[in-house]
Amino acid sequence: MTNLIKPVIWEGDAIRLLNQQKLPGAVEYIFLKTIEDVWDSITELKVRGAPAIGITAAFGLALWAKNSNLDQTDILKAELAVKAAYLNSSRPTAVNLSWALQRLLKVAEEEPTSAKVIERLETEAILIQQQDEETCKRIGEYGFSLLPDDATVLTHCNTGAIATSKYGTALGAFYIAKERGSDIHVYATETRPVLQGARLTAWELQQADIDVTLITDNMAAHVLRTKNVDAILVGADRITANGDTANKIGTYGLAILAKAHGIPFYVAAPLSTIDLETETGDDIIIEERNAVEITHLAGKRIAPEDIQVFNPAFDVTPHGLISGIVTEKGIVRGDYPTKLKALFEEVTV
Amino acid sequence: MTNLIKPVIWEGDAIRLLNQQKLPGAVEYIFLKTIEDVWDSITELKVRGAPAIGITAAFGLALWAKNSNLDQTDILKAELAVKAAYLNSSRPTAVNLSWALQRLLKVAEEEPTSAKVIERLETEAILIQQQDEETCKRIGEYGFSLLPDDATVLTHCNTGAIATSKYGTALGAFYIAKERGSDIHVYATETRPVLQGARLTAWELQQADIDVTLITDNMAAHVLRTKNVDAILVGADRITANGDTANKIGTYGLAILAKAHGIPFYVAAPLSTIDLETETGDDIIIEERNAVEITHLAGKRIAPEDIQVFNPAFDVTPHGLISGIVTEKGIVRGDYPTKLKALFEEVTV
Repeated sequence: MTNLIKPVIWEGDAIRLLNQQKLPGAVEYIFLKTIEDVWDSITELKVRGAPAIGITAAFGLALWAKNSNLDQTDILKAELAVKAAYLNSSRPTAVNLSWALQRLLKVAEEEPTSAKVIERLETEAILIQQQDEETCKRIGEYGFSLLPDDATVLTHCNTGAIATSKYGTALGAFYIAKERGSDIHVYATETRPVLQGARLTAWELQQADIDVTLITDNMAAHVLRTKNVDAILVGADRITANGDTANKIGTYGLAILAKAHGIPFYVAAPLSTIDLETETGDDIIIEERNAVEITHLAGKRIAPEDIQVFNPAFDVTPHGLISGIVTEKGIVRGDYPTKLKALFEEVTV
Repeated sequence: MTNLIKPVIWEGDAIRLLNQQKLPGAVEYIFLKTIEDVWDSITELKVRGAPAIGITAAFGLALWAKNSNLDQTDILKAELAVKAAYLNSSRPTAVNLSWALQRLLKVAEEEPTSAKVIERLETEAILIQQQDEETCKRIGEYGFSLLPDDATVLTHCNTGAIATSKYGTALGAFYIAKERGSDIHVYATETRPVLQGARLTAWELQQADIDVTLITDNMAAHVLRTKNVDAILVGADRITANGDTANKIGTYGLAILAKAHGIPFYVAAPLSTIDLETETGDDIIIEERNAVEITHLAGKRIAPEDIQVFNPAFDVTPHGLISGIVTEKGIVRGDYPTKLKALFEEVTV
């Protein structure tokens, strides 16, 4: 797809980055030329979405090495570890961030000279981005296979191209549909409190010429009842061993509404989101975020002073409400404990 | 209750009105001293809620008569009809507005002198307010009777004191609970797009020292699953002969979530909301409102330019999802076609 947004573009001597903080008011690309630029862009949420953060950090480390002028291989390798730790501190809880940086440090160790290290870091960062794109594309293709022709679908939050290398996860299915000439129509919930649906999903689908209609979260039930919706597709923050899925607040309610209307409810996510160490959703601690996300909007107060607020960042959808989990290795339906585990035991091609 | 907000207060020579346009940022009472002040306050939505509008207009007509210095009875009565038509033009679709004004014109006809007409208009306007208060209080008492001690409840939109004379409908149950010393806890959904829950319900319950927690609409499912909610109470815009209920968008979804969690779902509304002429919810045309309500908040754009929006103002909850309809004449459960009709056939006390 030509008009599919790529949030991170490697320019050889800089990273061209879509500034997501400015969306949808302005589409601004910024150029990151130093490792400090990269650190700032992650800290300031100019780049968001775990895969996109990992990719940006990988290019950041490669960029630093390229500009380092360090020709003593040992010193370069030692400094790389320091710089990786620095980049990793930009968002300590992002799994993909540390994973990508570790991967670069590991391949650097394999190279005998400074020049080779610098070259390898760049090719490995490019490879990480390519592999993420391939993973997303496969998820998208499997997701698309679940949809009828010219489907009407509903999605929540942002699981799109701008959170990954390209395509995204749940949104990947819609981009593949578009590529294949299927006339897809998407209802995007605005996703209060942070409005990722209104600000990001609506925008990126619009950019890709996909027919998208924005609704508030509480309109979903009415839309399911009156608009012939074929399926709901969402992403995931964490999928436990039994298939219970933690995702953006509001997902659980949509799963109940889907069941009540006889509409399939799919979760799309890469294997890296599946956490076999955690048995069920009951073991997931739900993060509660700052009240100001609810009481203020665009800097303006929309609720009374001193009002009590409950602001869980996500909720847990029990596996019984999930019609299928779409991964880059295929679609899992039912008997999640066995089938999710099996995904990891297959030989990776 | 001493600290229960009354939105409209008759001062004998003026109407003291809570300016709802300024809530919750500022609690401002304004004094309406002329009929033009009254017309403006309704047009500019300083007063909202069908009962509150009707009461304000009634006092507005009484106030005009008092200040008219017309001692020729025929001229006064003729002029009253003109002024009533003027007030009625402030919000042509509000049923209570025309109903209250007609009621005043009718009683004016019964009086022989100007002095008696002027006196009667004032006492009748006071009576309308008192009767609305009594209706709301009865709804509140019946609603309260459905709740366990120290209940946790969830409500949607604003059905409170400031939309009526006092107490409100669904919120009436919570005020009665407070009066009776029951330690009630209310989850109030913010009610996108217009945020009546965040701006009005959260504020008025807070004013009444009721323990209220504000959530976004998409948090309701998670709250029902994790917070031991005893019941959901909502209001109604229109109840059809079979019990199907049109109410603020989001109500239908809450009814499905209530059923999925085994939580009773009640609708609270006066008999004036029940429309026996309309057979089922399928006959109700759903008003779609301006896209700007979704794309902008507090004057600021929160969604992309030219984004397609679907903005239904309300939805229809099928009667099968409603555990009971709470009216000033009691609670109706099941067999709605027969029982709702019977409410109107009983002798009014």
